[in-house]
Amino acid sequence: MAQPRDAYRVFRAIGTRWMDNDVYGHVNNVVYYSWFDTAVNAYLIEQGALDIHQGETIGLVIETQCNYFAPLAFPQTIEAGLRVARLGESSVRYEVGLFAQGAPMSAACGHFIHVYVGRDDRRPRPLPPRLREVLEGLRMPA
Amino acid sequence: MAQPRDAYRVFRAIGTRWMDNDVYGHVNNVVYYSWFDTAVNAYLIEQGALDIHQGETIGLVIETQCNYFAPLAFPQTIEAGLRVARLGESSVRYEVGLFAQGAPMSAACGHFIHVYVGRDDRRPRPLPPRLREVLEGLRMPA
Amino acid sequence: MAQPRDAYRVFRAIGTRWMDNDVYGHVNNVVYYSWFDTAVNAYLIEQGALDIHQGETIGLVIETQCNYFAPLAFPQTIEAGLRVARLGESSVRYEVGLFAQGAPMSAACGHFIHVYVGRDDRRPRPLPPRLREVLEGLRMPA
Amino acid sequence: MAQPRDAYRVFRAIGTRWMDNDVYGHVNNVVYYSWFDTAVNAYLIEQGALDIHQGETIGLVIETQCNYFAPLAFPQTIEAGLRVARLGESSVRYEVGLFAQGAPMSAACGHFIHVYVGRDDRRPRPLPPRLREVLEGLRMPA
Repeated sequence: MAQPRDAYRVFRAIGTRWMDNDVYGHVNNVVYYSWFDTAVNAYLIEQGALDIHQGETIGLVIETQCNYFAPLAFPQTIEAGLRVARLGESSVRYEVGLFAQGAPMSAACGHFIHVYVGRDDRRPRPLPPRLREVLEGLRMPA
Repeated sequence: MAQPRDAYRVFRAIGTRWMDNDVYGHVNNVVYYSWFDTAVNAYLIEQGALDIHQGETIGLVIETQCNYFAPLAFPQTIEAGLRVARLGESSVRYEVGLFAQGAPMSAACGHFIHVYVGRDDRRPRPLPPRLREVLEGLRMPA
Repeated sequence: MAQPRDAYRVFRAIGTRWMDNDVYGHVNNVVYYSWFDTAVNAYLIEQGALDIHQGETIGLVIETQCNYFAPLAFPQTIEAGLRVARLGESSVRYEVGLFAQGAPMSAACGHFIHVYVGRDDRRPRPLPPRLREVLEGLRMPA
Repeated sequence: MAQPRDAYRVFRAIGTRWMDNDVYGHVNNVVYYSWFDTAVNAYLIEQGALDIHQGETIGLVIETQCNYFAPLAFPQTIEAGLRVARLGESSVRYEVGLFAQGAPMSAACGHFIHVYVGRDDRRPRPLPPRLREVLEGLRMPA
């Protein structure tokens, strides 16, 4: 179900691209997932919680899902709302709502689950302390 | 969970692309969904069950999901197994397994749900007869 | 050669995406072209010079080129500078400079040539009057 | 100008994807470049001339170009013809022709120029011997 803006903790603006529209004239379902990745990773990098080039651990995606309620289309600007729903020893579930700019209810909702692993051995690792701190800040108040 | 090949009815080969790999050296989670779309739509077009330019109805995606078990990477060739899991009056749930070429178990599994609507009014329509016929052929035997 | 900002008439900001980075950690050369399309088409739509759904004419791309001087990478914001270099009866040559946010010199420069054709018959048509007006505004002063 | 098949040394098949088509119903101009990268890099990897994960040198793209003669569209299969046009101390110019499957003349032609640099310092390096050998085999006979 579509959700209101106050179901999310932080928002990031994402620009659509010409190529996002498919032959039916709306953003293709695949593109939404690139916005999930983009919104979450950009936020983590800005908060100093992710170093994609040198970090000893990396987040592997093990599950993704999206539900679509209303079409979006280039040249709209999208606002992605973020929250953390589950925070484990070495995993995190992000939930993302995508809103047309200024719209009260989400046009799509989805989630993805990251498991943190060693960059080289790809075995589970505890979430790094700074990452955990940032993720705690993305949880919804009880 | 990863599934064996005999869990799917038909297979299509999909070539990976250089850009599919992300900074961690494996195919990005987003790209898997473009393979779902590609495998299903190409099959439907070849079977005469989809006309993307002139058809009076179009399939709108309302839900997608993917679970990832093992990495895939350019320049591998991928084999996508297809089956139909639910067939309603105006909707269909496709399930797709992605296999590394020749591998017995899937590296990822996912699904997407299409609702068929009028191209112009975007209101639900019964699945066209030829499409329904092809989709019946993608169901697993009981 | 890299060019300064005053070589362009208007600028548009473009957000990078996680998937834009390739395995070497920088934006893949292909992605730059999606920014060209995006910057120009968004500008034309905002100026009322392009209707991608209903317009009787469409712009077909017949040539594209890009030269790359310095790497760009997610999560940078890119600034695309636009100008029109040649304006014919039914064609236009756009030139685009891509700048890292705030940088004085372009990280990449490119162009693409649109020929306007009828949506259905795909035969050359004169540029629509409102489009020509907007394109005149993108020419550099002599 | 469109070119015949015998203007190229080797061919590789590339599958189109649903998302390759844009709102006008043909493959977007940007996608052609992802095919250039894919055809050349897959060929180099198969010939043992490129190790994208461990190689000490990497190929940086400094220029790309494409001319478009006829539309291509999903679900067509594309055949990419490859040749090497210039081979320098640390650079190479690849030329690629894209053909609709079985077509005698190319639907698009392009090139890209790679400069080989150290993976870490990004300074020019001589082409590795095995790479040079493979590239010599892609030159057209005089």
